[in-house]
Amino acid sequence: MTRPGPVRYLAPPGAIKPTGPWSLAALDTTTNTLHVAGMRGIDPATNKLVEGAEARIRQAFANMRHIAESQDASLQDCLRLVVYTTDMSRYRPIANRVQQELWGAGPYPPRTIVEVHRLNDDDIFEVEGTFYVSGAG
Amino acid sequence: MTRPGPVRYLAPPGAIKPTGPWSLAALDTTTNTLHVAGMRGIDPATNKLVEGAEARIRQAFANMRHIAESQDASLQDCLRLVVYTTDMSRYRPIANRVQQELWGAGPYPPRTIVEVHRLNDDDIFEVEGTFYVSGAG
Amino acid sequence: MTRPGPVRYLAPPGAIKPTGPWSLAALDTTTNTLHVAGMRGIDPATNKLVEGAEARIRQAFANMRHIAESQDASLQDCLRLVVYTTDMSRYRPIANRVQQELWGAGPYPPRTIVEVHRLNDDDIFEVEGTFYVSGAG
Repeated sequence: MTRPGPVRYLAPPGAIKPTGPWSLAALDTTTNTLHVAGMRGIDPATNKLVEGAEARIRQAFANMRHIAESQDASLQDCLRLVVYTTDMSRYRPIANRVQQELWGAGPYPPRTIVEVHRLNDDDIFEVEGTFYVSGAG
Repeated sequence: MTRPGPVRYLAPPGAIKPTGPWSLAALDTTTNTLHVAGMRGIDPATNKLVEGAEARIRQAFANMRHIAESQDASLQDCLRLVVYTTDMSRYRPIANRVQQELWGAGPYPPRTIVEVHRLNDDDIFEVEGTFYVSGAG
Repeated sequence: MTRPGPVRYLAPPGAIKPTGPWSLAALDTTTNTLHVAGMRGIDPATNKLVEGAEARIRQAFANMRHIAESQDASLQDCLRLVVYTTDMSRYRPIANRVQQELWGAGPYPPRTIVEVHRLNDDDIFEVEGTFYVSGAG
């Protein structure tokens, strides 16, 4: 899945499998910036959505983190998040709780959160992240 | 349209014309990163929307590609896409088909796709892209 | 709020205060790129929403600009904007007017604008911006 040029499209072992014409992430090896596609709460073992809102939201973040960690980046290297949810009042508090678990006392990355009309597979939550990657190569 | 500083706002020949206070794209000449505004299926010859969903979606990608190519970047240099559509079930399959035409067998850039309530001009499809540009200058 | 690594999370004096697990912005000190979280029209003096659509939209841009200026970046260093609004036909013209005030005769940054179903606090307008920062350090 890698290319000879400076942009590398990633398919790390253990990650979910894209089901369409998109990659999980692209690494710009000239700036060490990792662009992760919007991640949803899909279980990489089955490629199916996890049941339960909190578990699914946690899985979405876990899927993003897995891709970051495959490039030796951590949640502390996150430059920005955009969260898309289908119900702000129900799922934003859950996202907050999950992020507090994952990032502890912080600091937290900048986050933009919006309620959209629909996500793929009628899902409830999707998070797009951009990361700094040290020593990409 | 260019500025003396490291950020260059672009208005390439043959591209659509912005009808408001926005530019088509910005090039960060220090990182060689090209940020293209959300492109819709506007015909640059008339500055009007193309008729037909598939043709319009193809034109949106063509408009983005035209801007990238004006900086010697190609679709293979795309770092991320965010697609906004007003009907996920109708237009996502079309977007997939068009991307398969444009990117062939891949690899494909990471893509986030969401259904929003409305786009400008009551349009159906918009794509924002970020690209790596080699030898920007 | 700063970290020893290359990613710095920002909390500039005079800015609004985040009320959840997110930071206002992240600066990638290796690429001099500033990622500002979606800003809404919150008055930093009271941390409450400004009354009136135009004043509130102006405040959202002011909040973003304040963060950029804390890193010696200006609106002319903006690489991209994504605007989320809950009513395209009402608020896009106001955003255009406010941007013309702020950016004068231009050039303007690339902007993607979409109408979403809901924003946090049932707000009407949010703007996410990415900036080039010279001499970050």
